[in-house]
Amino acid sequence: MTTGVIVAAGRGTRMDAKGDKLFLEVNNLPIIGHTWHKFDQHPDIDELVLVIREEALSEFENLASKITPIKPYSFAVGGPERQDSVRNGVRAASENCEVVAIHDGARPCVDPETVSNAISAAKEHGASVAATKIVDTIKLSDGHARISQNIDRTHVWSVQTPQVFKITVILEAMEAVDAQNASVTDDTAACELIGQSVILIESRRPNPKVTTSADLPFIQFLLEG
Amino acid sequence: MTTGVIVAAGRGTRMDAKGDKLFLEVNNLPIIGHTWHKFDQHPDIDELVLVIREEALSEFENLASKITPIKPYSFAVGGPERQDSVRNGVRAASENCEVVAIHDGARPCVDPETVSNAISAAKEHGASVAATKIVDTIKLSDGHARISQNIDRTHVWSVQTPQVFKITVILEAMEAVDAQNASVTDDTAACELIGQSVILIESRRPNPKVTTSADLPFIQFLLEG
Repeated sequence: MTTGVIVAAGRGTRMDAKGDKLFLEVNNLPIIGHTWHKFDQHPDIDELVLVIREEALSEFENLASKITPIKPYSFAVGGPERQDSVRNGVRAASENCEVVAIHDGARPCVDPETVSNAISAAKEHGASVAATKIVDTIKLSDGHARISQNIDRTHVWSVQTPQVFKITVILEAMEAVDAQNASVTDDTAACELIGQSVILIESRRPNPKVTTSADLPFIQFLLEG
Repeated sequence: MTTGVIVAAGRGTRMDAKGDKLFLEVNNLPIIGHTWHKFDQHPDIDELVLVIREEALSEFENLASKITPIKPYSFAVGGPERQDSVRNGVRAASENCEVVAIHDGARPCVDPETVSNAISAAKEHGASVAATKIVDTIKLSDGHARISQNIDRTHVWSVQTPQVFKITVILEAMEAVDAQNASVTDDTAACELIGQSVILIESRRPNPKVTTSADLPFIQFLLEG
């Protein structure tokens, strides 16, 4: 059984009076509704856990009535940091869950084939992540808008979600994070702590994260394309 | 005087029978036509040098008759590597050129304000480059699609073009490249050889490089927006 864990607990950027970025609408459905629907429809996903802020529960219940999911779903409450939210989501998976696909609620454009490929790779190797090769040259700045270092771009990837794991792997990685009191920016970094390699799965289509309302025309373009 | 050097000499990817990617059409104008027109119309650009493949000359002359440029322009012939093409373009600038703005012909979407900001910064500091902050987490792969290293993304930038220089700076940097027989992926890397710092100018709008025909709908979307 494969569980999708959709992380939708970030406070986001309150861009307008209507609420957070996940509830900005594209084609009459909030961003998070598009993401939920896409995972709900995906043939390799068996159930969903949505990690949300407690005070957003009624909004999500309204949303469910709008998208009428066909897969079982449950809600988990988010924590102060992303890693806390992910942990709560993973722990809310059904007992017979073998694989978890952790996905940012703010990435509604992920293509189903990339999700399938990531799930397959995680089943085989333990851990995988959707990513894109960086085409442009990458530089590190000195913090004052000056270039301080060049990076050989041959092997540079920008990682996205889903990040997919055997549930035994991600639980062990999370224990290592706790034991070492580590702070990790993403779940693949947690895997490093236990020596678990992570397979990079190239995204077939652009898979951006909504960060401001300025992203919406592009998101709409991708959702329609 | 500020000279725009548009690098349009790459063989590109021959995606179809019609020729290289720069001549793929969006809204009835080739990609390179959009780029040329944008620089031709820019108030801070005084003349243009287009670096092209010798055999493409008649195509570019046809293109000129289509976009009817208002600024003086000339053609320079590209070399085997990008750095050779850039060198030929810079050397073709007028004698009273003080600043060169080197731009990829395959980036038609650059916004004029970013070009202005880059030119201003180069006039003041000697060198600048349009860039975007990387939002996603960056990883290095081991060359076999496995993550081998995490990078702190706080100060990671993806650099684009224009890359803008005082002409004295870029000529000195190019001499250093020659003297050291160095191979540089971009012109800002050449600046490192002479200790010239490069200012990062954040792009105001997406500024992607056309790499395949699959990019065209997004390019069209950006050009129309």
